[in-house]
Amino acid sequence: MRSFWDPRQLSHSPSKELHNGAFVPYAEHIGRPKSILAAIGATEAAVDHGEEPLLRVHPRDYLDFLWSAHKDWRAAGREGDAAGYVWPVVGRRPLDLSRIDARLGRYSYDGGTPIAAGTFESAYWSVQSALSGLDAVIGGDPVAFALCRPPGHHAGADYMGGYCYLNSAAVAAEAAIAAGKSRIAILDIDYHHGNGTQDIFYTRGDVLFVSIHADPKYDYPFYWGHADEEGAGDGEGANLNLPLPRGTALAGFARALDTALARIAAFGPDLLICCYGADTFTDDPISFFDLQTIDYPVIGRSIMSLGLPTLAVMEGGYATDALGGNVAAFLEGLQ
Amino acid sequence: MRSFWDPRQLSHSPSKELHNGAFVPYAEHIGRPKSILAAIGATEAAVDHGEEPLLRVHPRDYLDFLWSAHKDWRAAGREGDAAGYVWPVVGRRPLDLSRIDARLGRYSYDGGTPIAAGTFESAYWSVQSALSGLDAVIGGDPVAFALCRPPGHHAGADYMGGYCYLNSAAVAAEAAIAAGKSRIAILDIDYHHGNGTQDIFYTRGDVLFVSIHADPKYDYPFYWGHADEEGAGDGEGANLNLPLPRGTALAGFARALDTALARIAAFGPDLLICCYGADTFTDDPISFFDLQTIDYPVIGRSIMSLGLPTLAVMEGGYATDALGGNVAAFLEGLQ
Repeated sequence: MRSFWDPRQLSHSPSKELHNGAFVPYAEHIGRPKSILAAIGATEAAVDHGEEPLLRVHPRDYLDFLWSAHKDWRAAGREGDAAGYVWPVVGRRPLDLSRIDARLGRYSYDGGTPIAAGTFESAYWSVQSALSGLDAVIGGDPVAFALCRPPGHHAGADYMGGYCYLNSAAVAAEAAIAAGKSRIAILDIDYHHGNGTQDIFYTRGDVLFVSIHADPKYDYPFYWGHADEEGAGDGEGANLNLPLPRGTALAGFARALDTALARIAAFGPDLLICCYGADTFTDDPISFFDLQTIDYPVIGRSIMSLGLPTLAVMEGGYATDALGGNVAAFLEGLQ
Repeated sequence: MRSFWDPRQLSHSPSKELHNGAFVPYAEHIGRPKSILAAIGATEAAVDHGEEPLLRVHPRDYLDFLWSAHKDWRAAGREGDAAGYVWPVVGRRPLDLSRIDARLGRYSYDGGTPIAAGTFESAYWSVQSALSGLDAVIGGDPVAFALCRPPGHHAGADYMGGYCYLNSAAVAAEAAIAAGKSRIAILDIDYHHGNGTQDIFYTRGDVLFVSIHADPKYDYPFYWGHADEEGAGDGEGANLNLPLPRGTALAGFARALDTALARIAAFGPDLLICCYGADTFTDDPISFFDLQTIDYPVIGRSIMSLGLPTLAVMEGGYATDALGGNVAAFLEGLQ
């Protein structure tokens, strides 16, 4: 299986995040991709597809914000990484806001997703890795892997959150449609609900979004990922959330996966994009499922049983020492 | 003029707030009311009106949240004061959320409004002070003052923010209507837009909300207080925002005040509630208008020129040493 990565994805290195009411060391650190790279063997350099594919998902003003936010933060005399402190929870709408703090809140939904000097560069190349993996699949490979980092599934069209800035899976889905595919399924098996991806395609009937994740009643992102979110408008019925309780092990996960795969098969997609998070691992420090390393090949094989051209993109996973092995195990199942 | 206050309003004493991306000492500290009490002479004890008046504005689940949040925070093993880190900026809706962090975000819009052990008690008595002042005005006094602290104008029906937990002015307005008044005007002259009050009455035609404040394009609360927010539904035209640039001194402020008072006079209210913030003062550490202490009697007299029964409630003001003198100066103008 071909895998894609660009070393500029290491440029992003914030020092801290707001979590449970206090600043703690940033969990989505550069040790993560290094652990994965050490375990999965050779990767190919991502090819630059430019901004056009990004603009199919993210508006220009959001990209401009991401690109300039850290410089604007420093120009305002601030130290460290840029992060918001107030959010438009009521009546969110486009506004011309000059202060950097106002724009940070305008384009985010949490205090745990800071913008550092290299954030835009890393997020840009994370998306390019996904697009390069997509090229391989569209070119005829049955499966490819993109080591996306920073991850993407919490990022909406015009907001960042949950360590995510640009939504690689969504950009790849739109690129596949632009390349002639007509129906795309996205299967998100990160521990956390992929609220950004859901939001981007919520009213779309040509992109099915299915997510298996921890119940948002007690796990991030809390406000999205509930079972009653089923899509709207043209997308009615094209959104399936399968929240699971803490402590879920392979048996419970596999039952949800069977439900997910049946829905995907019924949808009849041309392409599957799988958002893989290794934070379902039993020892993950910020997550609470009970999957073992040996479970990941089983999950990978189940997904491939659909017989669909498949692009796997990396999302979360914070047990750094075990992360590379868990990713390699999952990729083994995708072969 | 009779003034109202309860010493339990000092119970609320968070240690820090999230501001401009970092934790800083809490600006809305107990030195504020102490400065005011030392300057305005005798106050009367607030009378307890119970929860019923609060429930005309705030839903039961929000009051329950405020009451238990700090205990729930400690029960979750957390230290310090309770504060959120993720917010429902898209698709906010009622949800049954068990984790305290989820509920903190559900019921707030910023990271700068922590809940400490005494927060509910102080907010409760802040509202009771406003209701006690209202009793004086309804009883025939031309004007009364409620030393509300914590302040209230950023709090919506079901959210806290900007140091505000319960909206004293809104509760007083509803209590006045319950007591037989039919049309209420609220004039907010704090440096910051009173977004919570605006939101509570945005679709109401019987409560006019008029606010003079710093342009939210670059000052808190950023997402509300813009000039194009004019009310909706039955409240169309019953919301007037008059944002002013940083550096505004008495001349510019008085012009906006003339516009505000003309609108209020045209509305023909039975009662005026004035939300007074002393953070328009030139030396305020977090605000940027240029009013002097000697300007406040001028402003107070202009407001009383309407000839309306008037309840003044305290909002912000963070230049602690000058705060008492500024409040006393304003009250002098209201006599």
